[in-house]
Amino acid sequence: MGTVGTGVAKLLLDHGDRTARHAGRTLWLKKAVVRDLSKPRDVELPDDVVTDSIDDVINDPEITVVAQLIGGLEPARSIMLQLMEAGKDIVTANKALLAQHGAELFTRARELGRTIAFEASVAGGIPIITNISQCLSANQIQSLEGILNGTSNFIVSQMDEKGASYEDVVREAQRLGYAEADPAMDVDGTDAAQKLAILAHLAFGASVDWSDIPCDGIDGLDPADLIYASKLGYRIKLLAVATLAEDGLELSVGPTLVKIGTPLAEVRDAYNAIRVIGDAVGPVFYHGLGAGQMPTASAVTADIIDTAVGRTRLTFETLEYFCVDQPPRVKLRDADTLIGRYYFRLPVSNHPGTLAAITGAFAEDGISIASVIQHESGDDSPSDQPVQLVVMTHEATEGAARSATTKIEKLASVTGPVVRFRVKG
Amino acid sequence: MGTVGTGVAKLLLDHGDRTARHAGRTLWLKKAVVRDLSKPRDVELPDDVVTDSIDDVINDPEITVVAQLIGGLEPARSIMLQLMEAGKDIVTANKALLAQHGAELFTRARELGRTIAFEASVAGGIPIITNISQCLSANQIQSLEGILNGTSNFIVSQMDEKGASYEDVVREAQRLGYAEADPAMDVDGTDAAQKLAILAHLAFGASVDWSDIPCDGIDGLDPADLIYASKLGYRIKLLAVATLAEDGLELSVGPTLVKIGTPLAEVRDAYNAIRVIGDAVGPVFYHGLGAGQMPTASAVTADIIDTAVGRTRLTFETLEYFCVDQPPRVKLRDADTLIGRYYFRLPVSNHPGTLAAITGAFAEDGISIASVIQHESGDDSPSDQPVQLVVMTHEATEGAARSATTKIEKLASVTGPVVRFRVKG
Ligand SMILES: NC(=O)c1ccc[n+]([C@@H]2O[C@H](COP(=O)([O-])OP(=O)(O)OC[C@H]3O[C@@H](n4cnc5c(N)ncnc54)[C@H](OP(=O)(O)O)[C@@H]3O)[C@@H](O)[C@H]2O)c1
Ligand SMILES: NC(=O)c1ccc[n+]([C@@H]2O[C@H](COP(=O)([O-])OP(=O)(O)OC[C@H]3O[C@@H](n4cnc5c(N)ncnc54)[C@H](OP(=O)(O)O)[C@@H]3O)[C@@H](O)[C@H]2O)c1
Repeated sequence: MGTVGTGVAKLLLDHGDRTARHAGRTLWLKKAVVRDLSKPRDVELPDDVVTDSIDDVINDPEITVVAQLIGGLEPARSIMLQLMEAGKDIVTANKALLAQHGAELFTRARELGRTIAFEASVAGGIPIITNISQCLSANQIQSLEGILNGTSNFIVSQMDEKGASYEDVVREAQRLGYAEADPAMDVDGTDAAQKLAILAHLAFGASVDWSDIPCDGIDGLDPADLIYASKLGYRIKLLAVATLAEDGLELSVGPTLVKIGTPLAEVRDAYNAIRVIGDAVGPVFYHGLGAGQMPTASAVTADIIDTAVGRTRLTFETLEYFCVDQPPRVKLRDADTLIGRYYFRLPVSNHPGTLAAITGAFAEDGISIASVIQHESGDDSPSDQPVQLVVMTHEATEGAARSATTKIEKLASVTGPVVRFRVKG
Repeated sequence: MGTVGTGVAKLLLDHGDRTARHAGRTLWLKKAVVRDLSKPRDVELPDDVVTDSIDDVINDPEITVVAQLIGGLEPARSIMLQLMEAGKDIVTANKALLAQHGAELFTRARELGRTIAFEASVAGGIPIITNISQCLSANQIQSLEGILNGTSNFIVSQMDEKGASYEDVVREAQRLGYAEADPAMDVDGTDAAQKLAILAHLAFGASVDWSDIPCDGIDGLDPADLIYASKLGYRIKLLAVATLAEDGLELSVGPTLVKIGTPLAEVRDAYNAIRVIGDAVGPVFYHGLGAGQMPTASAVTADIIDTAVGRTRLTFETLEYFCVDQPPRVKLRDADTLIGRYYFRLPVSNHPGTLAAITGAFAEDGISIASVIQHESGDDSPSDQPVQLVVMTHEATEGAARSATTKIEKLASVTGPVVRFRVKG
């Protein structure tokens, strides 16, 4: 009965006609388990519904579906196992748990003849799980590009629109309830990487540990980069990308320059969006609220309905998601071989030969430069004040870009760490 | 074995591993029925597969699912009934047939214990049917706005971008294969109205005859209106709209001014897009290819897979789509009471008092004017040459807008028919 659980209770209690029509039967909210019975809740629950004992659920044979909406790994994992052992089918929104323990939980569900539905675990209200698992099932998905963390997108959009600093916007996001008291997992890319790991499993059959996905967050993003990007015709977005190539799957999460005017660049505020390319269907673009009480409850409740109708069981039995006996259908590409265009920003001292040294370092790694912006320091600033050099490259491998970064950071004329982002579109 | 049928055959034949994985069993293409055996087809079919006799399907008990991909009403309707009587489940892309005979076909299917899946009938590759029927099932849908006809959108986009005439772009669209030899049903709004009737049934339980939907097409659209719209910050799109209000459902299809920068305004070429607002999920936006061989085949094949898995049956048995025993859950609003903003363009003679007469006519119907553009005729043009007067109104009822139109067309200073479009956003 946290944020999402309360939303689900509202839908089940206030809109029984609607859920009954779609489920072909009335869905009864029999129990709501809380830790603290005295804590006020945002929805009025019938008297005998609230309990602080999970045993009231486990021992009630009339309860067949449980929406398990505790966050984090424990006790969420143990409770889910307990519930499945008691014969309950599970609906969950917990991507951290699935990204970490998906194989264990799905294997146990299969052994026990139970199901796990998890639409709400990725992109909140956007039904991307069902779309990939069912609607686009005639396709080989070729790529996925997603803005999967609403908090990060809110922060970046606000920095962009208001020219505000990262710290100021985070405080504002916390005030508005978009960011949690500790938004670390949102802003460092962890949440997006966990969601990408789930999507990559569904779309490509990849079995990937989310912590193996090359991942940068937007924490500490410098407003200067948003301004340079916009001068170049781009916005910076925290993009989660999965691309299938001949030699494997490329996965990455990081701040990325996205061409202004393309759909992903126009995703504002706490919205999420996903662009999927299938070999038959072509590009399909989804945009909606990736978090929040009611959008997430919409996804959880759709899963409860699907479980009641029996569709979840058919899908679960047909698709071998998180099945340890199944070898992964695709392997990850060596990150060093990934090809992309790059944005570099370097603080440099404005001395003769600086540009030559830097362009030389790029050339040494075979990286060709597409454009350079040198931000002039004002007339009255001393010539030893660092200036910002922005370099856009043509296509290069990640390995070459990393090697060039290391070389450049060692140059005497480069006065601080190099900022490097990928460029799309 | 037309455009779509050939695409489905390709997916089934070339990607058996993929469809088998998602269907949990191998899907065999047993028969392909054609009219003319000697006509060359774009896919190589195994020897005993092609037949010109539907009886080869009807009498084969091993065939359980038939993708019925003939267009138009007959013989499509009779063949579908015959197939269901022979125990086959149906997948179809034929929106004209469903919009016209949905109740009959679905009732018969229910009597016979058969299913009909129809994802491909609306918006081609965008899986909007499954999204509304399943993924958003916890919501009361509040509105749907869609660009549902790719041919019309291609024509309008090209006119907009190239400043070309309607006739020239239609010829170009035919050359490129976007428009059929006779694109009448596409450009006059019929196709969009049929699709809207299907969506309105799924989303709102409306039982509406598509021909009762107020409907204008883009045939004969004047490039001048695209230019004026763009000066005002809008693009013109053929928009299909369903909005739920207290007193019923509003449905309409027509060229509509959509604010530049909003997602629907940015839909180009032959793409389709749909913006759905649900009371829990908020706005969800879908964008993709609404027609074409492989996008449509993607939807048909997903339906074949769903039918094989058994999901289609569960959905079909649960939701009472096109069920004649079910009273419609919503009634249509009286079109005259619909409220909207309007764009008017009037050819007027440039005489003193003209503007007073026109604004007076608007005032008489209680319509207040938001802005006026009077297109100056060149200095050397004679003063009796008509000039174009463009009026944007504040909110007014459709009834008032129509009444004002009639009055204005009777004014002596108005030299030709009035162009009137709705305005969104
Ligand atoms: N919020 C969103 O927008 C959103 C979107 C997508 C996915 N999710 C996922 O949904 C899950 C829930 O998120 P949330 O935002 O609803 O979190 P939340 O507001 O913190 O709610 C978590 C709830 O779990 C309860 N809980 C914890 N341990 C429990 C126990 N042992 N027994 C009974 N209840 C226990 C807490 O009880 P108390 O109230 O007594 O503390 C709290 O009500 C998380 O996995 C999250 O990642 C959330
Ligand atoms: N094309 C698209 O992008 C698209 C998108 C969405 C939905 N749809 C819908 O899908 C359906 C098919 O469209 P399409 O573009 O594939 O049309 P199409 O290319 O004209 O194909 C129709 C096929 O039906 C065959 N046919 C007609 N009567 C027949 C009969 N009695 N027995 C056997 N075959 C018969 C025709 O055979 P012959 O080849 O021998 O003439 C032709 O191959 C239509 O309902 C359309 O509205 C099409």
